Amino acid sequence: MLGLMQDRPLTLPHVFHRAEQFFGHKQLITATPAGTVETTTVADWAVRVRRLATVLDELGVSADGRVGTFCWNTARHLELYLAVPCTGRVLHTLNLRLFPDQLVYVANHAEDEVVVVERSLLGLFWPHVDRLETVRHVVVIDDGAPTEIPDDPRIRHYEELLAAADPHAGRFVVDDENAAAAMCYTSGTTGNPKGVVYSHRSTLLHSLATLFADGVGLGERDVVLPVVPMFHANAWGLPYGRLLAGSSMVLPGPGMSPDAILSLMAEHRVTVAAGVPTIWMGLLPRLADYDLSALRTVLCGGSAVPKVLSEGFRSAIGLPLLQGWGMTETSPVASLGLLRTVHDDLSTDEQADVRAMQGPAVPLVDLRIADPESGEEQPWDGVSTGEVQAAGPWIAAEYHRGEGGGVQFTDDGWLRTGDVAVVDRHGYVKLVDRTKDLIKSGGEWISSVDLENEIMAHPKVAEAAVIAIAHEKWVERPLACVVVEPGEQLTADELIGFLADRVAKWWLPEAVEFIDEVPKTSVGKFSKKTLREKFGGYQVATPDV
Amino acid sequence: MLGLMQDRPLTLPHVFHRAEQFFGHKQLITATPAGTVETTTVADWAVRVRRLATVLDELGVSADGRVGTFCWNTARHLELYLAVPCTGRVLHTLNLRLFPDQLVYVANHAEDEVVVVERSLLGLFWPHVDRLETVRHVVVIDDGAPTEIPDDPRIRHYEELLAAADPHAGRFVVDDENAAAAMCYTSGTTGNPKGVVYSHRSTLLHSLATLFADGVGLGERDVVLPVVPMFHANAWGLPYGRLLAGSSMVLPGPGMSPDAILSLMAEHRVTVAAGVPTIWMGLLPRLADYDLSALRTVLCGGSAVPKVLSEGFRSAIGLPLLQGWGMTETSPVASLGLLRTVHDDLSTDEQADVRAMQGPAVPLVDLRIADPESGEEQPWDGVSTGEVQAAGPWIAAEYHRGEGGGVQFTDDGWLRTGDVAVVDRHGYVKLVDRTKDLIKSGGEWISSVDLENEIMAHPKVAEAAVIAIAHEKWVERPLACVVVEPGEQLTADELIGFLADRVAKWWLPEAVEFIDEVPKTSVGKFSKKTLREKFGGYQVATPDV
Repeated sequence: MLGLMQDRPLTLPHVFHRAEQFFGHKQLITATPAGTVETTTVADWAVRVRRLATVLDELGVSADGRVGTFCWNTARHLELYLAVPCTGRVLHTLNLRLFPDQLVYVANHAEDEVVVVERSLLGLFWPHVDRLETVRHVVVIDDGAPTEIPDDPRIRHYEELLAAADPHAGRFVVDDENAAAAMCYTSGTTGNPKGVVYSHRSTLLHSLATLFADGVGLGERDVVLPVVPMFHANAWGLPYGRLLAGSSMVLPGPGMSPDAILSLMAEHRVTVAAGVPTIWMGLLPRLADYDLSALRTVLCGGSAVPKVLSEGFRSAIGLPLLQGWGMTETSPVASLGLLRTVHDDLSTDEQADVRAMQGPAVPLVDLRIADPESGEEQPWDGVSTGEVQAAGPWIAAEYHRGEGGGVQFTDDGWLRTGDVAVVDRHGYVKLVDRTKDLIKSGGEWISSVDLENEIMAHPKVAEAAVIAIAHEKWVERPLACVVVEPGEQLTADELIGFLADRVAKWWLPEAVEFIDEVPKTSVGKFSKKTLREKFGGYQVATPDV
Repeated sequence: MLGLMQDRPLTLPHVFHRAEQFFGHKQLITATPAGTVETTTVADWAVRVRRLATVLDELGVSADGRVGTFCWNTARHLELYLAVPCTGRVLHTLNLRLFPDQLVYVANHAEDEVVVVERSLLGLFWPHVDRLETVRHVVVIDDGAPTEIPDDPRIRHYEELLAAADPHAGRFVVDDENAAAAMCYTSGTTGNPKGVVYSHRSTLLHSLATLFADGVGLGERDVVLPVVPMFHANAWGLPYGRLLAGSSMVLPGPGMSPDAILSLMAEHRVTVAAGVPTIWMGLLPRLADYDLSALRTVLCGGSAVPKVLSEGFRSAIGLPLLQGWGMTETSPVASLGLLRTVHDDLSTDEQADVRAMQGPAVPLVDLRIADPESGEEQPWDGVSTGEVQAAGPWIAAEYHRGEGGGVQFTDDGWLRTGDVAVVDRHGYVKLVDRTKDLIKSGGEWISSVDLENEIMAHPKVAEAAVIAIAHEKWVERPLACVVVEPGEQLTADELIGFLADRVAKWWLPEAVEFIDEVPKTSVGKFSKKTLREKFGGYQVATPDV
């Protein structure tokens, strides 16, 4: 028997106690619905976390009970981020943008015992409360919004509960690092949302990755603004990472307008900001109006980052976007698109192309690509495509209640991400499609996304979505669903002629349908499911090519 | 039952495969005894690691057998760093500076089956080989030194073995993250050296800490020069950290002269260098003669970093030393002395004082100070002293074969470091003594180090060591052992008079002994053990003060 290292669990109490011990003087700044900001220190926040821990006991939340949150990005939400898992309970961040039926489904599926709701969000939440089967208390955080608070025995008031509670004494202890700390449901473009359950270990390790110099590299001197919602997959690890590093934090609350965000960035000298492409798209025209000289990293993820957006930031403020890739099931950060020394000799435009890729796996994560049908691993040659599969200590092994087994996970335990990519010899992932959107024509894969990009390159096309239609000879063929720019005229022949120089002949759409708009999901992505339903029994009007 | 994250172990094969997959083109540069450099790529190095894995099988090394290394910092040593633990064996780095009896003791105590020795070191190693009870093979790496290789059946040739071996195919797998990966013996100023056994988990987590932006922050663009020997506690995590990050690496081999190191730094545009104070002390007068403009971090540890040394670097090249603190038992990095925003308003001199402290605990490590006798935890007030105790996933829980239990570890499992410190309110540790060197006079602690510093402030004192002598009334009192500057005269009364203004009256030495030199240990530290033996039954010549 050899000697041993200490068996210290990787659990979130370490994050809390580190912040409390070292960074009590650092600031937490939250924008309110009224347009003002509330500033608190980590020391005061930590006392509130300790009080909240006692409140959870007093509310009778089970030892591993789920506590739902229906909140913006606020310092109070961050109190829940720590108090819930540090007392052994499980934080269930409810997505504010879920359709009502999905909201009810996930709260019931997770068996939430308590839901904490910000007053400004009661209008979205309260109408569905009678369908929530396990929720005993709805704790309202009064964020100053004028929303009426229902007179109902289930309603409890966050500040009253905290004021009446003694702070938890001594250190928090969670011994089992594999215990659940938090959960988050996938947005689910097909079927019901599925629950991903993060362990203390996965969450802490994922948070450490926010500290890596080749990456976001959070440090004590940073001022971090997560625009990415805290109800999305751990807000990309920034809340816990920020506490470990001792960074200051600015939380935007409900204010998502470009000016609201830009004002916060300028006024509080934000150094690191993180959000989805749509947010940065909105800010792009206004960047020059604000002093963003403190900014050093703008993290962008959630969907592929358009090259033009990243380049727009680079032109305006000298700072391209840093692309991160992942999903709820990957905690979410799996890869980051930082340039490396091998890219130093590329032209500016080529470097922008590299930044538009999803980048190489971060440390502790393994990625591979495999044929979606045979499962055979594909080479990293920049040409071969395959489904991205992921393994690592912060990648899901299954969904809550064992759902998704056998379909979304391989026999050797890797996550099937559903994303299709090529990987170059330096390990840079470039997404080309979703597996379910690929078109298999005559045994060869056609990327619907690549074909859409070529169609959208036509100046008269506003947007386009490509789906597979059944074909007797080739099994599947592409159907182009095209929205024409207002006031323009376009024919199928004209479009096919345009494409003939740009794609292989067998990639040319079998048919073109002109539509008024591409249907979208609740989070704004193309809903190809709706298109498939609409064009289910599509009959090609022309003979085989 | 909640859903789960993947049970992916934190083991060193991840480090190897990450480097092989992503960083095959990066360089490993080793200085040879002949004064030339050998350059290899990670891709070529990785093939050699795979061959070495097969060699270990062919040599019949047990499944968890110990493989000793008696090597400089070289690319071949780095091959052993990976091949040994990635095949489940345990790397035992033998300290080149051990006295022969200690070398024999540790190799036997660890039950080394094979020792890999560089040819230039055979002269130090081979004379003791017949006393090694478990070693079956001595594998010689021919580094071009002219040392004669004995004609002995135990001798095997590293390059011949590699050339004849097939590379290990497929991925390395170590399933148990708590399995031993490496071991290192303490230098042991008292009693026999004790073995610290690092697990895969502890080693990988400790290596991640080298990537943190607030710290060394290794990145792909770095060129890392570990002057700290690879036989010292994981070379401070740099070899594995460098492979995770993809940094280039420069290895100094046996060349430890200031010019040899400075030439490597200048020629290879080193960005991060790491070594003990003695090394940097030697470089200080020569810094201006070399182009060190690529350098961004000079890490210094192993013993307290003198303020004057760090300030010397700052004056010469604009870069103070970054102090790290730890010991073999802490893997070793436990704290890092980076300045934080709270120090921004301090004067340059005050900032230098902060840098001369050992700094706050790094993420995942917990430190506390406690009374060495009662064990009572002491406040972080910058005044209260206590023994530093450490907890964390890369801190030892016991020594090899269970030695040290009950003495070096607290009841709640923290390591007693033997270092005495004060901690300020920001968590910055400042070492003031070793517990065994403290003097307890009338129930109050006297710091021997503080007292030594005051004595050495006298212009006629070359060096001084203070030890405790028995005292009937006060239990212990300080005895000053003083070396006078050559050609100077100093009396006890003159020294006591000098001290009277500088320390509390009860700190004044009970007696002063003038000696020719302070005895040193094998690593150059004051050997107070020798002084205590010499002055064991010391009788104070003067009546009680």
